[in-house]
This record gives sequence, C-alpha cells and structure tokens, in this order.
Amino acid sequence: MSEWVEPGCVRVRLDLGYDGRDFSGWAVQRGRRTVQGEIQEALRVVTRSAEPFELTVAGRTDAGVHARGQVAHVDLPAELWEAHREQLLRRLAGRLPHDVRVWRLTPAPEHFNARFSAIWRRYAYRVTDDPGGVDPLLRGHVLWHNWPLDLDAMNAAAAHLLGEHDFAAYCKKRDGATTIRRLLDLRWERRPDGVLEATVRADAFCHNMVRSLVGAMLFVGDGHRPPAWPGEVLAAGVRDSAVHVVRPHGLTLEEVGYPADDALAARNAEARNLRSLPPCR
Amino acid sequence: MSEWVEPGCVRVRLDLGYDGRDFSGWAVQRGRRTVQGEIQEALRVVTRSAEPFELTVAGRTDAGVHARGQVAHVDLPAELWEAHREQLLRRLAGRLPHDVRVWRLTPAPEHFNARFSAIWRRYAYRVTDDPGGVDPLLRGHVLWHNWPLDLDAMNAAAAHLLGEHDFAAYCKKRDGATTIRRLLDLRWERRPDGVLEATVRADAFCHNMVRSLVGAMLFVGDGHRPPAWPGEVLAAGVRDSAVHVVRPHGLTLEEVGYPADDALAARNAEARNLRSLPPCR
Repeated sequence: MSEWVEPGCVRVRLDLGYDGRDFSGWAVQRGRRTVQGEIQEALRVVTRSAEPFELTVAGRTDAGVHARGQVAHVDLPAELWEAHREQLLRRLAGRLPHDVRVWRLTPAPEHFNARFSAIWRRYAYRVTDDPGGVDPLLRGHVLWHNWPLDLDAMNAAAAHLLGEHDFAAYCKKRDGATTIRRLLDLRWERRPDGVLEATVRADAFCHNMVRSLVGAMLFVGDGHRPPAWPGEVLAAGVRDSAVHVVRPHGLTLEEVGYPADDALAARNAEARNLRSLPPCR
Repeated sequence: MSEWVEPGCVRVRLDLGYDGRDFSGWAVQRGRRTVQGEIQEALRVVTRSAEPFELTVAGRTDAGVHARGQVAHVDLPAELWEAHREQLLRRLAGRLPHDVRVWRLTPAPEHFNARFSAIWRRYAYRVTDDPGGVDPLLRGHVLWHNWPLDLDAMNAAAAHLLGEHDFAAYCKKRDGATTIRRLLDLRWERRPDGVLEATVRADAFCHNMVRSLVGAMLFVGDGHRPPAWPGEVLAAGVRDSAVHVVRPHGLTLEEVGYPADDALAARNAEARNLRSLPPCR
C-alpha cells in the first residue's frame, strides 16, 4: 500500500470495470466471490505464479455496486512483467469471467498509488420513473422508482449539499473515521431515453454516502419532502430514519481522477496527512 | 390479423421492449418461453379472462434478439378495455417478468394493424473490438469481436448494399417467400464509449437478414475481405459460406415506423398486395 515500489518490482496500473450483481463487493473476503479475488486469481494463473499479487484499489465498492472506470495497482516482479506484458491483457480477458473486465495495463508513473493518489471519484446513479418499469436491457444497472420524479426539485435539493461538509448524516458510522468530505458535483439529468442520471463527484466518499444522498433526493423528487430537506438533514448532522439507502444496483463508479504525473509525490504526502484516521473507502 | 376490428371490440396498440436472452423468440411455441406467450398470459391474468387475447406484432424477432421499440396490437372487448384501461399498464408492469416491459397501451387509430401498417423496421447491432472485452454492464446486448474493426471500411461496404435488391444471398430461404427488400439505412458509428453501432432500417427483413449483413461487414472491418465483397455476394444472389450469421444478442429492434393516421387505410391495401406470398417476418 506504499507509494514506493520495492526494488526489482514494477507498479502496474489496471483500468477495469465490473457488473457488481454477483459479487460480494470489491474486497477479498473468505468464502465470498469478490472482484479483487477474481482479478488476483486470474493474474496469478496467467502469470503462472504460486501466490497472488495483491491489488490496491481507488474505490472499494460495496456488494452489488458496479464500476466502469475503476483503477487499481499491483506490484509485479520486473522480469515477470517484461515476460508477460505483450500478452497479459488478452490472456486476462480470456481467463476472467465476463462480469469483470480489465481494459488497460500500463506501467504506473513514479509515486503513483491507485488509492492515495486519487483526488476524486465520480459515481453515477441511474433511475427511471417510467410507469412501465425499467428497459429490460438496462435493468441490471437502473433502479425503478414507481413515482414520477421532478428533476428540478432534485437539482434544487442537490444545490444545498455541494461543497465541503461533515456528511455524518449520510454516512454509516465507523468509529474514529472522519466524515468530512468535499462534494464537487451533484446534479441530475434526464437522458433522451428517459432515465434520470445523477453525477456525484467528491474527493472521497464515506460508507453508503452516495446511496443515502440519492435516497434523500428521490424523496424530494417524488414530492414526499421539500427541496430544502436534504440540506436540513445534512446540517442536523445525525442520520434521519426518513433517508433510505437506495439499492446498490443503480450505482456505478464511472471515473477516478489523478493529478498530473509530476504532482503525484506531493499528492501522496497530502493524502496521508488527511487519512491518519482509519480509512473510510 | 385484420385491419378491421370486430364490432364491440377496441384495438389497443402496445409499445414494448424485452431482453431476448431467456426467450425462444417472439412467437408462441408449445413448451417454450416466448415474449408473446408471457404478455398474453399477463394480460389474461390482469383482465381476469379465461382465454388469452392474441397479439399481432410488427417484428417477429428470433431467439435471443432484443427489442426496445417493438409494437403489437390486441383486440379487446370494449367493456373490458373501459373497465381496466386506467390501471392496466401498472398491473401489467406488476405481473410481467422483468425481462419484458410494456411501455404504453393506447387505443389504435382506425385501420391500424401493428404488422401490416408498418412501413419500416429499424434495428441496431452493437459490437465492441476492445481487446479487453465487453463492458460487463452491456454484455447482454453487445457482441465482442476480438479483432480491431475499421469503421470506414465497414461503411464503404454498407454503401454497396443500400436500396432495393433481392437479398436472397443474406436470407434463410423459405419456399415461395420473396426476398426483395428495400434497405433504407445501413451505417456504422463508433459511440463515445468505443462500441460500434450499426443502424439497419428497411421496409421489412427476411429471416436472418440483419445478422448476415452484419457478419459480412465485420469480415470487411477486420480486414478479411475488401469493402466491395458484401455487394458482390448480394449481386451473386446465393448464400456464401464465408458470410457468418452473427450471434443474436448484439441485435435489438429499436423502432417501427407507421404512416400518419389518415394514410393507414391506403397502406394496408398496399401491404396486402406485396405480401400475397407467405410472410417472411
């Protein structure tokens, strides 16, 4: 988990995506099918290694959450990387199950750490209010909300949540972890096909944060609460039983932002200072 | 199957979509799960009818083919329609499995017949040539082609196929059926996410026609044949063993075109004349 790569090793960046439906989330857990576990095992097999190489990821997604623009890194022995790099992507594609795909494998720039170098994570949450239901081809990653949703009301609610705040009211509490986050983008758009898509971008997220924010905004969109309500819950600073954590399958990690290569060393020092408390995700 | 509705009946237009993966195609077959069968049974149950009402469809899709903009009609007793119309869409949504959705139920204009009034059908075929594979969230409706595809070469090939031709070389033969079709649109675009999407629009299609045309164009796109080849196969007029019928899961019926309401009567007479031979699909 260091920004320093051991001598004789090469740090490789993986850009990847997955359908979260049949996974118990990203992180390896004994006896469970996880994204990290599947990739580590595929990498072990195609490099003919006895032991797996451990992946470090930008966003540890929960069970059922998808990713398109997930980023991870792995440190590989230099001679192994050189022996396999030409064919590694296609061999991984052949070995991995179809619900997880690695798009690119690239030598990481100096000081790159998939987790600590990241400066923001961008998620999308997708929902339809069509009375007929969800397009069957999209039903794996779009929620059905069986009430008409008012886009303007949801965007008005979103405006009260932007910026740096203590998001304790929207976080599943973990002892000692900070819940202060900077919400950089939060907006809803209705696509041409009628699906409502929330763009949610922040420096980092605490546990359940996106799904709780979306739950509060849907409650505004369908008229159960006024647009000011999600901001009032935020200001109160405690979890509100009226805020539902929406289902995971509407949520997709779309992109992770990193600084320019020459700013990576400085970024790591900064991230370490902010995260001296136990990490959130 | 008439453009005339029996006295005491109301013709209702259904706009619908489905994920074709777990269906043996549209048309009812004994002992098989079909889209027509599922909708007819759901409609029977929610209207508390003893017998199913038969649906007539614009495009009889094959096993594994999807639809977003499929159109069908059904003739219902007027008093049944009046008793149920307010709640019918939501009740159907609750009763239907999640891989088939009815978006709208509307009284059809006079002389409307979902099949014979249609003036064109538009399909999309989606394929990715990303060496890593298909985005897991899209893998149910996007084909993976494990060779780089040249968009310009495929569009050059498509230009030779447009217009009215005898498509016998691209049709699964059925005795007595005409294979003359008018291909109105055939073009490839690369979406921002890298997926290649073919738009294929014709007055009608014979069996396997879209998937055979796509197979020929992919063989051009990956460099196995020159752009003139699909047109040469068309002109030869016989099936060519080098033309592969690509897998059904990349194919989606996107839209069906109808004339303006006041032109429906004339359209029906025309369609009947053209289709005096056994229908194709």
